[in-house]
Amino acid sequence: MTTKKKGKQTVAFANPPSIAGHACVVGKKEGDGPLAGSFDLIEQDDTFGEASWEKAESAMQKMALTAALDKAKQAASTMDYLFGGDLLNQCIGTGFAVRGQDIPFYGIYGACSNMAESLSLAAMMLDGGFGEWAAAVTSSHFCSAERQYRTPLEYGGQRTPTAQWTVTGAGATVLAREGDGPYVTHVTTGKIVDKGIKDANNMGGAMAPAAYQTIKAHLEDLNRKPSYYDLIVTGDLGRLGKEIVLDFFHRDGMDLANFDDCGTLVYDLENQDVHCGGSGCGCSAVVLNGYLLNGMRAGRWNKILFCGTGALLSPTSTQQGESIPCICHAVAVETKK
Amino acid sequence: MTTKKKGKQTVAFANPPSIAGHACVVGKKEGDGPLAGSFDLIEQDDTFGEASWEKAESAMQKMALTAALDKAKQAASTMDYLFGGDLLNQCIGTGFAVRGQDIPFYGIYGACSNMAESLSLAAMMLDGGFGEWAAAVTSSHFCSAERQYRTPLEYGGQRTPTAQWTVTGAGATVLAREGDGPYVTHVTTGKIVDKGIKDANNMGGAMAPAAYQTIKAHLEDLNRKPSYYDLIVTGDLGRLGKEIVLDFFHRDGMDLANFDDCGTLVYDLENQDVHCGGSGCGCSAVVLNGYLLNGMRAGRWNKILFCGTGALLSPTSTQQGESIPCICHAVAVETKK
Repeated sequence: MTTKKKGKQTVAFANPPSIAGHACVVGKKEGDGPLAGSFDLIEQDDTFGEASWEKAESAMQKMALTAALDKAKQAASTMDYLFGGDLLNQCIGTGFAVRGQDIPFYGIYGACSNMAESLSLAAMMLDGGFGEWAAAVTSSHFCSAERQYRTPLEYGGQRTPTAQWTVTGAGATVLAREGDGPYVTHVTTGKIVDKGIKDANNMGGAMAPAAYQTIKAHLEDLNRKPSYYDLIVTGDLGRLGKEIVLDFFHRDGMDLANFDDCGTLVYDLENQDVHCGGSGCGCSAVVLNGYLLNGMRAGRWNKILFCGTGALLSPTSTQQGESIPCICHAVAVETKK
Repeated sequence: MTTKKKGKQTVAFANPPSIAGHACVVGKKEGDGPLAGSFDLIEQDDTFGEASWEKAESAMQKMALTAALDKAKQAASTMDYLFGGDLLNQCIGTGFAVRGQDIPFYGIYGACSNMAESLSLAAMMLDGGFGEWAAAVTSSHFCSAERQYRTPLEYGGQRTPTAQWTVTGAGATVLAREGDGPYVTHVTTGKIVDKGIKDANNMGGAMAPAAYQTIKAHLEDLNRKPSYYDLIVTGDLGRLGKEIVLDFFHRDGMDLANFDDCGTLVYDLENQDVHCGGSGCGCSAVVLNGYLLNGMRAGRWNKILFCGTGALLSPTSTQQGESIPCICHAVAVETKK
């Protein structure tokens, strides 16, 4: 077999897996935002009828997976693999969502890059010949993430100008070895980049250099210009991080006209009091599995480079004075193989 | 390409990846145990010269990876992929260990099944044609895990009879697409099994049903008898969990003469005050990358089924009254392809 590796970080699939189903579930605030029409379910009660925020997150993830499986017309037991992750300690959002489902499971942790990481690995499993069906699922919840990473909600702390708002939402994608697309055609695996930012309320600034590194590697590995894609979209850099990435490319002599960020797309930044925009692994998960993939199916875009961005910090590392290691994984999705 | 899938949960590699290097680093208590001779480095100071237990764990993981790369005679930058995980919130043990290393990285979370999960995915990447080299690294630290999952060390809580002792150690394996073995020949991906156990001090009892399910699936998928293997070894079931697995198989009419558990191997259970034995993802990581792989190289065993066992709980899920979802991934390692 010839290698599928292109350059240092990218693989080109021999038989690009097809996206057979995708779905997303969100909370009230996301449903009040500009992408409301692209969500499969908008729940008005952020508890999702559960007794804790963590259980709400699990419920949401289960609903997204079920909906994506329904759209793919497949039973959970058909899946050869499920890759899933979230932001909670020991990834309990996912562990409890997957419990009771009859699917071989690999838990992953890439912080807010979870959607891209899980999708990358699911696609690699199928192209590698290890099965016919694989699913990827990811979630975050504003209320569980705030008490996890920052302060309890009841504390009512003032948010800083660079703060972002964790998306309450879950997204799931079902991949098939054969199908009508859209197809996952390439994956660029990120390296950890840490430029020394220590402010846990400036995720966009911390993650931007990782996004820049991965996008640049992707373009170089495949010898592509940014204009090859109809849209290059990062996961949750927010307003500030997005500007930083654009600035990095500008310095390289490239002005990206087709660049956007799920964190700036998911909320109305002027009117929803979210400061720099959305964040959390639910952010890129719901934008990908709603707005972006729906848009591809509707013919709006044919080639998207989806770049999940993640900050690999924890409250403990912040308290111990550490800076924030970040990562970005890129997944190329195209309507034609 | 014909599928590599056998039955519902197992894959047989077309071109089994070769273990080119393996190493493990442990703390003092592990060095006082019966496997002392198999460890590459025994550190007498469990801080590893760092200012916190979490940083000590990162340091340990970095040392294990460096040693495994040295044995494989490869630079970090040669690796196409690194898969790594630990037990800490947001997997900071791994994130900070990998920071600054020039390797495309996928973070994973399978609790104490991390070594088997990372090894499975690394092997699949190579057999799938996505690269030439991949590494897997995993760690746990008694001091960071105790304050993470149970109580601060200073509290001096009484340990229950079913408690296990988290291994302070890290293990790393370097895989190559071509080489002289031992080879990773098969992987069986686990499903989540939760039989309702809620006692966070009875990990062995909680995980045993998952281990039984995966081993059984492996044998059925490949139509093998347990006696095919020289050794079937679980990750960290401890004395109680090991007995439960043996009991399950006994009910099926199979008496496993070749079954053992890394948690019972790593300490002297009579004299080291570890109650039911070792646990933590460092447990199976150091036993695999020391005792087991050294033993294979020395001709003691030719066929080992390595079954990493993980309990996907968190302190939050325990406080919220949840039972413990568990998982087990099995990796077959053989000296001949």
